[in-house]
Amino acid sequence: MGAQLSGPRRTLVLGVGEVPWDAPVAAADDAGLRGDGFFETLLVRGRHAVRLAAHLDRFERSAAAFGVGLDRDAWTALAVAATADLPAAGEAVLRWSLSRDGLGLVTVRPVPDGVRAGRRGVDVVTLARGTATVPDAPWLLAAAKTSSYAVNSAALREAARRGAQDALFVDADGLVLEAPTANLLWTAGGRWFTPPRSGRAVLPGTTLEAVAGELNVEEAHVRPAELAGADGAWLLSSLRGAAPVLRLDGTALPHDADRTAALRGIALGTG
Amino acid sequence: MGAQLSGPRRTLVLGVGEVPWDAPVAAADDAGLRGDGFFETLLVRGRHAVRLAAHLDRFERSAAAFGVGLDRDAWTALAVAATADLPAAGEAVLRWSLSRDGLGLVTVRPVPDGVRAGRRGVDVVTLARGTATVPDAPWLLAAAKTSSYAVNSAALREAARRGAQDALFVDADGLVLEAPTANLLWTAGGRWFTPPRSGRAVLPGTTLEAVAGELNVEEAHVRPAELAGADGAWLLSSLRGAAPVLRLDGTALPHDADRTAALRGIALGTG
Repeated sequence: MGAQLSGPRRTLVLGVGEVPWDAPVAAADDAGLRGDGFFETLLVRGRHAVRLAAHLDRFERSAAAFGVGLDRDAWTALAVAATADLPAAGEAVLRWSLSRDGLGLVTVRPVPDGVRAGRRGVDVVTLARGTATVPDAPWLLAAAKTSSYAVNSAALREAARRGAQDALFVDADGLVLEAPTANLLWTAGGRWFTPPRSGRAVLPGTTLEAVAGELNVEEAHVRPAELAGADGAWLLSSLRGAAPVLRLDGTALPHDADRTAALRGIALGTG
Repeated sequence: MGAQLSGPRRTLVLGVGEVPWDAPVAAADDAGLRGDGFFETLLVRGRHAVRLAAHLDRFERSAAAFGVGLDRDAWTALAVAATADLPAAGEAVLRWSLSRDGLGLVTVRPVPDGVRAGRRGVDVVTLARGTATVPDAPWLLAAAKTSSYAVNSAALREAARRGAQDALFVDADGLVLEAPTANLLWTAGGRWFTPPRSGRAVLPGTTLEAVAGELNVEEAHVRPAELAGADGAWLLSSLRGAAPVLRLDGTALPHDADRTAALRGIALGTG
């Protein structure tokens, strides 16, 4: 544990190579400093980036939405170079980002304490998002994982302010959308559900995709009050895998440790 | 003109001072590279930053929305230092940005050709924004000028792809909101109008504020078809001042050069 908390931090720049972890890399007028770019966050276990191909696929979809090219081989090589020296056991966080001006960055850092704690469970609050529908329009970048994360970060700060570890956005119709950095999965009556994504402010996650490849996950609208009556709920994301929702706006949810273990196995690629 | 096009480019870092224009200033893990910060863009005429106090006020409101402090005196001093050596005549663009991690940047650069051309008039296309309403919730940062500009930039690229120079976002109810970097003003029957801002995805602009201080500007909902029948429409922003809308989705709008000159005088502080 101690080794991981103080573990390696590395920064690699596309077309340049490794630089010191905290070296300045972006010029003041780079599009990346206007949120005008996209990124992926991957979990590395040992020296293996979990679901590398799925992340590359989404990174490529983001690039297409931004109208820029992407060299899959170059990013794969950067991922390999960045993680080659990691300990054979243990975990790390790998992040790719590419700005519209072409600034490509790869970082490796230890898994934050909050992520580890989140795997054991999170308290969640619901937060209004306002957005009702997202038209199928390329300029809205709905399929891209953009670097414009100001609202996502502000929502997580609001959750912390309320004593919770995560949030679920609720749209103007009162229906649950997603967490700021995770998708929602819940179970009721022996079935598995996730909120519909088409035409809504929900980014398809690679972890949800992996779970849906193993379980029959149906799309269903859900309101917070209904979710609080589910047989269990989880936030699915690359770093935490499947984080069980322990409380929703203060109401305790059932938590089945065996289900969480099974979901985590699928999510982290160890199932 | 030539001197302005090839004019000075400067970068100053809060707490550090001047660095070369294109020097890297942001580390890979700075919040600024996740769109997690806020900014202001000011027009400098001679060595005078137009509406400095109004921009400082909004910068301060943005800081409050992000839960960070702001030293007005430090930013004023940076603005003075950045513009002190500019030619006594002519214009430049001054930009302030502050990331949640505290990376404060001031840049000065020449006014882009597109901005100068835009003052003579812009062709505009309407683009769906999807958002209908924005709840009064601090985590949505509605009053902040955030650095999360990916969608704004993508909308301007879509406008260019359609042969236009700017865009107007239209909400899920078919009502006009704002341009990606400007507010809308129009006139009809001798009255002045702008779309309502409260509870909607419309950022209050300092230029609109200045115009509303001189003219009686009423709030009114407007659909693109109604706007096309107006007696004139303008996009108000710090750099262009008042850019007359020459065409909306291909339909020519009336353009009264005297009105544009009067609005520009108010907008640029020369009226």
